[in-house]
Amino acid sequence: MRVLGVDPGLTRCGLGVVDGGGGRTVRCVDVDVARTAPDLPIERRLLAVGAVVEEWIERHRPDVVAIERVFSQHNVRTVMGTAQASGVVALLAARAGLPVAFHTPSEVKAAVTGEGRAGKEQVTAMVSRLLGLAEAPRPADAADALALAICHCWRAPMLDRMAQAEARAAELARAHRARLAEAARAAAGATPARRVGGRAAGGSTR
Amino acid sequence: MRVLGVDPGLTRCGLGVVDGGGGRTVRCVDVDVARTAPDLPIERRLLAVGAVVEEWIERHRPDVVAIERVFSQHNVRTVMGTAQASGVVALLAARAGLPVAFHTPSEVKAAVTGEGRAGKEQVTAMVSRLLGLAEAPRPADAADALALAICHCWRAPMLDRMAQAEARAAELARAHRARLAEAARAAAGATPARRVGGRAAGGSTR
Repeated sequence: MRVLGVDPGLTRCGLGVVDGGGGRTVRCVDVDVARTAPDLPIERRLLAVGAVVEEWIERHRPDVVAIERVFSQHNVRTVMGTAQASGVVALLAARAGLPVAFHTPSEVKAAVTGEGRAGKEQVTAMVSRLLGLAEAPRPADAADALALAICHCWRAPMLDRMAQAEARAAELARAHRARLAEAARAAAGATPARRVGGRAAGGSTR
Repeated sequence: MRVLGVDPGLTRCGLGVVDGGGGRTVRCVDVDVARTAPDLPIERRLLAVGAVVEEWIERHRPDVVAIERVFSQHNVRTVMGTAQASGVVALLAARAGLPVAFHTPSEVKAAVTGEGRAGKEQVTAMVSRLLGLAEAPRPADAADALALAICHCWRAPMLDRMAQAEARAAELARAHRARLAEAARAAAGATPARRVGGRAAGGSTR
């Protein structure tokens, strides 16, 4: 599975492509940071970030795009720009027909370092080691994008299994409700249930 | 001037097109609300909002797109979705070659009602009156989009004049600095200034 990880931003947008093999094997394909000038109008900055993301999707043909989920705990103005950039990345991934996954910063840190509150240096060091990089990726946004892609490689199978388990549970619950409704009808004997629009009727399989 | 006003959002995205004539004349061209289902993944919702925005730009050929500036004072999760949607709208406007303007909710309210803290009902009532609508636009997001477009019609000339004045002031300041540098050089007499890379040298016109 090839993952394009994006740490969204206007001033610096981290991009990292990772190939995930079986188990925990990961390989770095490419990493970079796209920058836009702070004095440009927001729409021109989004245009520039969008162009780079499209170029990377075209060049590296990822199977999925993983984006860092933005929280508004930091500087309000910065966060809004970051959220706008993340919306643009998600849109362009969807337009390219790719699935999109969001991971929180602590999910990413926990995945690569085992510690949800790991510092930037720790994340950079672990990313370098996991990918066997001779040189640590700089700036931190580049390392974050790779960490995000690694996180997705490792979380995706688990998320898939969870989704399958949830679907199975929902199916079992539905079958169970159907059996209950059937039993209720049988208990009512020959008298046909006339109630319509109520919960019991709405929940039946008829 | 034709303005497409967008009140960005994922659950409800307000769209309103207004033609601004001379003075304060405004005419409603179209208004609607695009909705996306809350249970869809974010990227599908952004895709849907983006498709509607592109369709409106294509159909109504606005001269400019005015977008409500998002603040993070409300519910964090909602605000992030709203910011992502506003990023998508700004990107698609820029891709269509249109200028983008952001106005804050209080700028919009102040423009149409004279009161920055006006309530939703007051904004809807004033929008209906200003545009001569027989029926008030519903829901509030539709009225907000029209209010935003009206606000832009009225603020744009002022913003243009301010930008021109600022450019003139910057030009005057530059000429003044050049004259000062010239005078300093003259005062130094025949001895040529050798300082390079310092503030005085960097600020000269040579």
